[in-house]
Amino acid sequence: MSPLDRLTELFRDFPGIGPRQARRFVYFLLAANPNYRRELAKLIETSAADIAQCESCFRYFPKDRQPSPFCRICKDPGRDQTSLMAVERDVDIESIERSGAFKGRYFVLGGTIPLASEEPEKFVRLRELRAAAERPELKEIVLGFSATTEGDHTRLLAEEWLKGVQEKGLRVTVLGRGLSTGSELEYADPETIKAAILGKK
Amino acid sequence: MSPLDRLTELFRDFPGIGPRQARRFVYFLLAANPNYRRELAKLIETSAADIAQCESCFRYFPKDRQPSPFCRICKDPGRDQTSLMAVERDVDIESIERSGAFKGRYFVLGGTIPLASEEPEKFVRLRELRAAAERPELKEIVLGFSATTEGDHTRLLAEEWLKGVQEKGLRVTVLGRGLSTGSELEYADPETIKAAILGKK
Amino acid sequence: MSPLDRLTELFRDFPGIGPRQARRFVYFLLAANPNYRRELAKLIETSAADIAQCESCFRYFPKDRQPSPFCRICKDPGRDQTSLMAVERDVDIESIERSGAFKGRYFVLGGTIPLASEEPEKFVRLRELRAAAERPELKEIVLGFSATTEGDHTRLLAEEWLKGVQEKGLRVTVLGRGLSTGSELEYADPETIKAAILGKK
Amino acid sequence: MSPLDRLTELFRDFPGIGPRQARRFVYFLLAANPNYRRELAKLIETSAADIAQCESCFRYFPKDRQPSPFCRICKDPGRDQTSLMAVERDVDIESIERSGAFKGRYFVLGGTIPLASEEPEKFVRLRELRAAAERPELKEIVLGFSATTEGDHTRLLAEEWLKGVQEKGLRVTVLGRGLSTGSELEYADPETIKAAILGKK
Repeated sequence: MSPLDRLTELFRDFPGIGPRQARRFVYFLLAANPNYRRELAKLIETSAADIAQCESCFRYFPKDRQPSPFCRICKDPGRDQTSLMAVERDVDIESIERSGAFKGRYFVLGGTIPLASEEPEKFVRLRELRAAAERPELKEIVLGFSATTEGDHTRLLAEEWLKGVQEKGLRVTVLGRGLSTGSELEYADPETIKAAILGKK
Repeated sequence: MSPLDRLTELFRDFPGIGPRQARRFVYFLLAANPNYRRELAKLIETSAADIAQCESCFRYFPKDRQPSPFCRICKDPGRDQTSLMAVERDVDIESIERSGAFKGRYFVLGGTIPLASEEPEKFVRLRELRAAAERPELKEIVLGFSATTEGDHTRLLAEEWLKGVQEKGLRVTVLGRGLSTGSELEYADPETIKAAILGKK
Repeated sequence: MSPLDRLTELFRDFPGIGPRQARRFVYFLLAANPNYRRELAKLIETSAADIAQCESCFRYFPKDRQPSPFCRICKDPGRDQTSLMAVERDVDIESIERSGAFKGRYFVLGGTIPLASEEPEKFVRLRELRAAAERPELKEIVLGFSATTEGDHTRLLAEEWLKGVQEKGLRVTVLGRGLSTGSELEYADPETIKAAILGKK
Repeated sequence: MSPLDRLTELFRDFPGIGPRQARRFVYFLLAANPNYRRELAKLIETSAADIAQCESCFRYFPKDRQPSPFCRICKDPGRDQTSLMAVERDVDIESIERSGAFKGRYFVLGGTIPLASEEPEKFVRLRELRAAAERPELKEIVLGFSATTEGDHTRLLAEEWLKGVQEKGLRVTVLGRGLSTGSELEYADPETIKAAILGKK
């Protein structure tokens, strides 16, 4: 296989990228400035070295001059230590932080659990979530998953894994459902309308 | 103008229909069975005669053998008389009824209020809504409008019109916001995430 | 069934209209001006009476004060009598006339032929097309069908039906393929590119 | 700026990539296998070294063991030396080769020319195209540009630059227009219909 074809193949693994766009990436790079190519290659290779995975929430974060096993949020004494929100992926944390509505800490599960998957704890961090849930200072875990079929399935499995700690007094909550920005009643599904009515205030 | 062109013009007034589809409607009708055409024409013409507008909620309903000024829902003694939900349009009632989550009665405002409109009470039933809100049995009005810019604007104006009755003790509530079915956290806007977090349970 | 539900059902037969939009049409009509409703009903009912189907090309056309069995184009002595274009539907004629590139006359087949259909001559006017092709003044039939799977299938069947007249000297042609407005080479399929290269000039 | 932010910024320069997807790429890479990351980085960096730009047609091609200034197609004595097709980009060559309908050689202009651009010869290879057009063995240049506004503008400018050689006897042709696969007559624009009618056969 030619290097161009191999590079195309590697780009096809990028999220949301099909064969055609992978090819366009390759041609884009060939025509790009050598400095651009060099900087990109270097950052891709060294990203792993400059980036650490938080030992507490499992998200990736840039290493500081003073190395720490914990990310900026997990280290921050100003965050509410009694509340933990489990999310699917790192990017979700950025979305939630932008809303400014959550003051606790996070836990990155690593993805959603497909419906038919066996031993899901091998694919996402259900085991690690349960361990995190044992932290004595914790009073609540928010399951911050998407309102999709896979998100709901992930929530159900997470609730099962958390049953033990829940019985010891931990609150397990889920994000509120309702009309999201842009929803019109006419086109909303019954579940969303039901949630919107139950959540009226 | 030829009858075909005039018919095309009339179909262009149908909601969501552009010139091309209007034209296809015309050709569809020309090729259709004469009985179909006749039944359609008759129903369009007599719909107004067979249909009444509820004097309480303003929605349209098919006239019964025993004529009544009120629709099926407004007449139903089993519905919660203390709760009224104002909606934009008749179709919204069908969506909400399908969810089975609301047991009160409805009020059809007749649309949303565009941002720059003057004297909005001439376009939608704000005056009638305030009158309905005066009913002594009523304890709560739910403003069941879309989570859109126009829906929010309509809600704000409705709240203003209801200020007087609200001060006399009527609860004015709005539908809950949050993740609607299919929402992914990554793509959700900050307002929706905020609502989802505040509404967690 | 209530008149509203029946009317909704009739609108669902309109081309491209689903249950939801059919319902919106009904509510739109209920809220519409009675004059609008009356005119629409009248035009729908009388369209058949005011409209004739051309005995030569089978398209629908508004009846003149002086009744004629032929439409404006078929009657026009200025049109090229030696060339006939078979099209799927009446609307196609309007599109072609807008281009100003065809000076002959038309023949409306009445639709495309689905792939698995038996006895297609019962659904579209293949028999009538063959009869039209026998006209002595005719030198060419253009098969003006869409560049879709069904359009191609229709073309193949039409060619079979026209084999006899073709052997007697009638030219049977098809519309040119190539890049259509907006096509980018990168995204064009091999067949289109091939046609574009063969048709270069 | 953190390395993550800088990497996101570099991915934003990729064709068709917005800020969100650029971010997802970064997180994808962080979670990826170190070997994957290493191979990707190496190929990005060395692509320029392993790849040469053809001195004849300007497309990129993988270097052979025996270095050559010309790509596989330009070197191939079996290709028609009298015909040259100018295309916008490298990827277009792949699309055209898949169609199997062109046997000549190519010339990569390097893009389309935006409508208002001054001195377009600084952005795309108009000067080099004219030089290539001077090759004595050449009889025809096909301007193989997209059927878009920018493609047409590029074609007009290329025709101007080629006027001199055209007067000396070189044929300058353009790709055929017409219905492209999937086009329906009803929705086709007048220009496309006109081309389809003129190109009937």
